[in-house]
Amino acid sequence: MILFVTDFGNDGPYIAQMKAAVRRNGYRGDILNLFSDIPTYNIRSASVLLNAYAHDFPEGCVFVSVVDPGVGSNRLPLAILADGRWYVGPDNGLFELVLRRATHVEAFKISWQPARLSASFHGRDVFAPIAARIARGQGASLLTPMSIHDVHRVDWPDDLSEIVYVDHFGNAMTGIENAPGLSGVKIGGETLPLVRTFSDVEEGAPLAYINANGILEISVNQGRADTYFGIEVGDAVTPIWD
Amino acid sequence: MILFVTDFGNDGPYIAQMKAAVRRNGYRGDILNLFSDIPTYNIRSASVLLNAYAHDFPEGCVFVSVVDPGVGSNRLPLAILADGRWYVGPDNGLFELVLRRATHVEAFKISWQPARLSASFHGRDVFAPIAARIARGQGASLLTPMSIHDVHRVDWPDDLSEIVYVDHFGNAMTGIENAPGLSGVKIGGETLPLVRTFSDVEEGAPLAYINANGILEISVNQGRADTYFGIEVGDAVTPIWD
Amino acid sequence: MILFVTDFGNDGPYIAQMKAAVRRNGYRGDILNLFSDIPTYNIRSASVLLNAYAHDFPEGCVFVSVVDPGVGSNRLPLAILADGRWYVGPDNGLFELVLRRATHVEAFKISWQPARLSASFHGRDVFAPIAARIARGQGASLLTPMSIHDVHRVDWPDDLSEIVYVDHFGNAMTGIENAPGLSGVKIGGETLPLVRTFSDVEEGAPLAYINANGILEISVNQGRADTYFGIEVGDAVTPIWD
Repeated sequence: MILFVTDFGNDGPYIAQMKAAVRRNGYRGDILNLFSDIPTYNIRSASVLLNAYAHDFPEGCVFVSVVDPGVGSNRLPLAILADGRWYVGPDNGLFELVLRRATHVEAFKISWQPARLSASFHGRDVFAPIAARIARGQGASLLTPMSIHDVHRVDWPDDLSEIVYVDHFGNAMTGIENAPGLSGVKIGGETLPLVRTFSDVEEGAPLAYINANGILEISVNQGRADTYFGIEVGDAVTPIWD
Repeated sequence: MILFVTDFGNDGPYIAQMKAAVRRNGYRGDILNLFSDIPTYNIRSASVLLNAYAHDFPEGCVFVSVVDPGVGSNRLPLAILADGRWYVGPDNGLFELVLRRATHVEAFKISWQPARLSASFHGRDVFAPIAARIARGQGASLLTPMSIHDVHRVDWPDDLSEIVYVDHFGNAMTGIENAPGLSGVKIGGETLPLVRTFSDVEEGAPLAYINANGILEISVNQGRADTYFGIEVGDAVTPIWD
Repeated sequence: MILFVTDFGNDGPYIAQMKAAVRRNGYRGDILNLFSDIPTYNIRSASVLLNAYAHDFPEGCVFVSVVDPGVGSNRLPLAILADGRWYVGPDNGLFELVLRRATHVEAFKISWQPARLSASFHGRDVFAPIAARIARGQGASLLTPMSIHDVHRVDWPDDLSEIVYVDHFGNAMTGIENAPGLSGVKIGGETLPLVRTFSDVEEGAPLAYINANGILEISVNQGRADTYFGIEVGDAVTPIWD
């Protein structure tokens, strides 16, 4: 299974062009859009979400991760093998959280060059083809092992106490992972104790809970947390520890 | 064929997570997003649209229907077999119109419990896996027959004289089904006689017609009915009968 | 491979209904949404984008192209074979750019009539079924050759000096194709020389470049060209030739 994690949007031609590139490179299995709406150019959000949501998928999956404000500049094209899952994309910090959390990691420079390389769409020209070949078990000759210490790293705090994503319902995901001692969150002057799920609070009331992928999320039962709190991606929140 | 009818949005990870859950449970056929944008938390709209659009699909199809404001509370997980099509989802009124219109109906409680059950994403954890197994013809042991009288019912009028959905073009679908004697609709001070299609009125003029799935729809030829009439989901309309 | 190019939107049931129609007509291969968000009713944009993006795909692909403000009126249903790729859709000018640019073209009237023909959704009832049959190599008996001179033609200029599409990032595509002597563009009082890619200008600065599909595009490095210039689809730009 190949999964796309991008900021390309569901609209427009880009996702279809990447899917067709996967097919042209011989992979016949499922291709899913895990996220097409990573906040635009936001490597930090992408890194948190990629790590939190990849765990839902089995070993052998390949994540094509393209949030790439520097496309066309000289950042490396990268492939990471972390705990049995593959990640391909630009070497710009996208894999920071995966690298921190995984127990076994190998890094590779993508040494393959396509016959046609555009200056602005490496998702189609490099990353989707490489993902197809890795998913077919034919990536080895196209990748050059590199030291994990040569991967571009970023010194974010270990838990990112900020909003990294707002979903279709207005639920606000944070970069804070579930951990012993986490008991709630402060946001917009309110203190929200951790509850189990939406229906634990009144309709229209806000709540903080650990979402189905293990990160702290702020919601309003049958309402929108983004409008309730006037919050957006990048805004700070304050976790409460016992 | 498995079809998703949800209010999850096309953006975000939820649809991909449900598709992956279907695959993990062994179903290899097509998975289509029939609606990912049911008006949020709107069980009434979902019920009308599910019934009107399911008829486009052959017997044996499985509709994963998740509009579930009460997720995590104690409402039952349900499977309905109606005129040869399967519907799985929460027992909250979603299947009201299907139950009223079908000629042969059987109801089942989903007695299977997943190894991992989140408090907020039963689409991924319960309904997609069950749909996969039903589609593979292996649902029987996971379902317990129940009386159709124990399904949660809702006392909506038989034709819902209101806007249930506004599409990408601004066309406003109603809960009114095509029937002998229906000759038009009153909306926003205007009376619109039923016409056959868009090009039967001038460019920019409003029209009422029976859409390609048999429900009364209000449109503007090459314009937007939602902005023309200032209408939105839930607004009342008045059908005109001969 | 079958590709949809429509103004139907990613939301709503229409794309899934067309995919199901393809399956009902026996085609089992990939179906991709190349564009679901062609500017609504905009045949001109559709014609430019269809031509520019079809070249990314191999011979034998079938493009179901439905931007169809006159649906239900008496315009012909058409199939075009151009340089080995098939295009099906209404005869309303959609194929103008494909017809001008291709070196080998054949035109066909779709003579097949479905058992059920709605007045408003020929994408589902005519074009998707025909595409499925063409993709299976079984289109011949359903198509009647017609003179290329009988296809509806439009007298647009050869390069459309206007915005035809704005993508998820706010990049504005034009109808101007890459050509020797093209050196830049004037827009909103600014003159933008042609550069290679985003990172060739400062963050926040505008640029003009040839996009990954060979058309002139106006962008802002890590910003939005649509808001920077206050531009939208249909607005004029002025190409600069050496």
